[in-house]
Amino acid sequence: MNDNVGIKYLISYSKKIELLVNKYFDKEIKEASLVGKSSSELLKRFATLAKKGKKIRGALIVLGYQLVGGMDLKAIEDVSIFIEIFHAGILVHDDILDESDIRRGITTIHKQYQPLHYGQSMAICAGDLAYYLSWDKLLSGRFPEERIVRASKMYADYVKRVIYGQILDINNNHNQLEKNASQKEILNIFRYKTAEYTGVLPLFIGATLAGIDNKQKIQALKEYGLCFGWAFQIKDDILGIYGDEKITGKPVDSDLTEGKITLLILHLLKHGSPSQINYIKDVLGKNKIGNQEILNVQKILKGAGSYDYVLKLGKQYVDRGIKTIPKITNDKKLSDILKSLLIYILERIN
Amino acid sequence: MNDNVGIKYLISYSKKIELLVNKYFDKEIKEASLVGKSSSELLKRFATLAKKGKKIRGALIVLGYQLVGGMDLKAIEDVSIFIEIFHAGILVHDDILDESDIRRGITTIHKQYQPLHYGQSMAICAGDLAYYLSWDKLLSGRFPEERIVRASKMYADYVKRVIYGQILDINNNHNQLEKNASQKEILNIFRYKTAEYTGVLPLFIGATLAGIDNKQKIQALKEYGLCFGWAFQIKDDILGIYGDEKITGKPVDSDLTEGKITLLILHLLKHGSPSQINYIKDVLGKNKIGNQEILNVQKILKGAGSYDYVLKLGKQYVDRGIKTIPKITNDKKLSDILKSLLIYILERIN
Repeated sequence: MNDNVGIKYLISYSKKIELLVNKYFDKEIKEASLVGKSSSELLKRFATLAKKGKKIRGALIVLGYQLVGGMDLKAIEDVSIFIEIFHAGILVHDDILDESDIRRGITTIHKQYQPLHYGQSMAICAGDLAYYLSWDKLLSGRFPEERIVRASKMYADYVKRVIYGQILDINNNHNQLEKNASQKEILNIFRYKTAEYTGVLPLFIGATLAGIDNKQKIQALKEYGLCFGWAFQIKDDILGIYGDEKITGKPVDSDLTEGKITLLILHLLKHGSPSQINYIKDVLGKNKIGNQEILNVQKILKGAGSYDYVLKLGKQYVDRGIKTIPKITNDKKLSDILKSLLIYILERIN
Repeated sequence: MNDNVGIKYLISYSKKIELLVNKYFDKEIKEASLVGKSSSELLKRFATLAKKGKKIRGALIVLGYQLVGGMDLKAIEDVSIFIEIFHAGILVHDDILDESDIRRGITTIHKQYQPLHYGQSMAICAGDLAYYLSWDKLLSGRFPEERIVRASKMYADYVKRVIYGQILDINNNHNQLEKNASQKEILNIFRYKTAEYTGVLPLFIGATLAGIDNKQKIQALKEYGLCFGWAFQIKDDILGIYGDEKITGKPVDSDLTEGKITLLILHLLKHGSPSQINYIKDVLGKNKIGNQEILNVQKILKGAGSYDYVLKLGKQYVDRGIKTIPKITNDKKLSDILKSLLIYILERIN
């Protein structure tokens, strides 16, 4: 197997939809400008952000479609961008919640305007708009209505849980100094906020639009998607502290300044020495964290075995995901892509 | 004609869906509690707000359905609450934007939590959640998929423009001290933010779910809906300054403290005397406005003819709307409801 087929699939998808995305936003921006300049201006900024995504979820929609034998690649590629629009939208809201300055290497929408309340207001609108643009895109897909309704219901259902995860996350951060969030709660957040939505939903949407009806295959796809999502989230946690911010486009101290109880931190809080735990508790939630402190945190997490533990957990998900592939497809090429994508998702550097 | 058939229709709708809405939220709150207590807690607060609405839009969905001969009233009543969920959701976001304290007689969601940023974050999530709950509800309607997709596309399309109106509104408020917003811009805001969405969309959704295909009828329904929406917005402007806050559930100074250029204010700025204009400009955008100042503003608006002008405009829309009714239906009972609702919407006190 060519180890790069997964990343090649992603890159090829990104390239193919680039023109689609540009055309799409040009049209929508033009429409918005008929209402007023402030709307089209905001949408332009949003488009800049949306275009910069890794587009993993969009690619998984196309892959899910192909796995069920869907043949109209143009139609599925066109519809697939709905999830990228949504994703950028919820990130805009997420960045208000987390008070983030930088996303995908550029200033977050709410920080692009002054004063703060005006910026937040514009960003709330940008996210709201993105949601309805994404719906419009999904509903306009050239697929049988029955499939569109089924896919749409899934979309609504999964996003509901993404938001429940978001709410838990806010309360986790808000209350963390008062009480330790339970491991169950944190794993819940990850499951809903990322794992299910990133891995399972896009594959399901693609498969649904291709007319999937084999229950065993649906089950296997769900299992694969969940493993993919967990591996994705685990790598996100690792990049959140060990990543290169020039590559990730996100400040390397942001998980720490936000006081996020990630899997790495959770392991340390449970298994670290008292002095390690005290150091981490001290750093978590500071407004600004220096380079030396980040290096110290990195060292402590490695020293306490937290890094190895979390990475191993990620590898277990990759292995579990690989085992489900034969139940999903017999196609050699698609199997290789599924396997390679899983491995890539834990090895990626952005 | 019994003049009260419109308001009776509204009250009867409100009563009929009360049980539906309670059941709906109970089920969703239970589901949310499986994810975490903070989610179900927030949804509970949102439900309290959502239940307090006037439910005009939901009633118009049912009416639109009946106007096209739809027979499954249970199905349309059940689905109609999607718009009330959405509406409460966008109000939650709107209240963050406008920094409002009170909505529908209760503390706004973002002010129910402390500190401010935490409250805003919870309220952003509540609105986001409401959007996806509303989609879930609409998509789960017991109607042919083809109609659901058509109705859903309308929903997405109209809300896009509501948000464009919202963006204009923010910028209108934000920039008002620097430059006067044009009348065109302000009328655009009203058209998109309220008139089309309040009047046209719900009637269209109901008619679409009943399978409307008569183009002339669609056109007449649109015309009626737009007149209804304008009359609604005009009355909203009037209540914003002349309303009784115990009845409207909204502080009577809020339009003024927000510095909103309503139709009343716009007329005064164009036709008032220099001293009247100076007084209004002075009051607009103040943090707190006293009772005497509100009385003065009321007096000035009446003195300058702005009140009469705007009310007359409202009556013109009512008359125009009434003229479209014969093109919509020959049914005596439904015609009377359409007429009575239009008259009511401009006479209402909340």
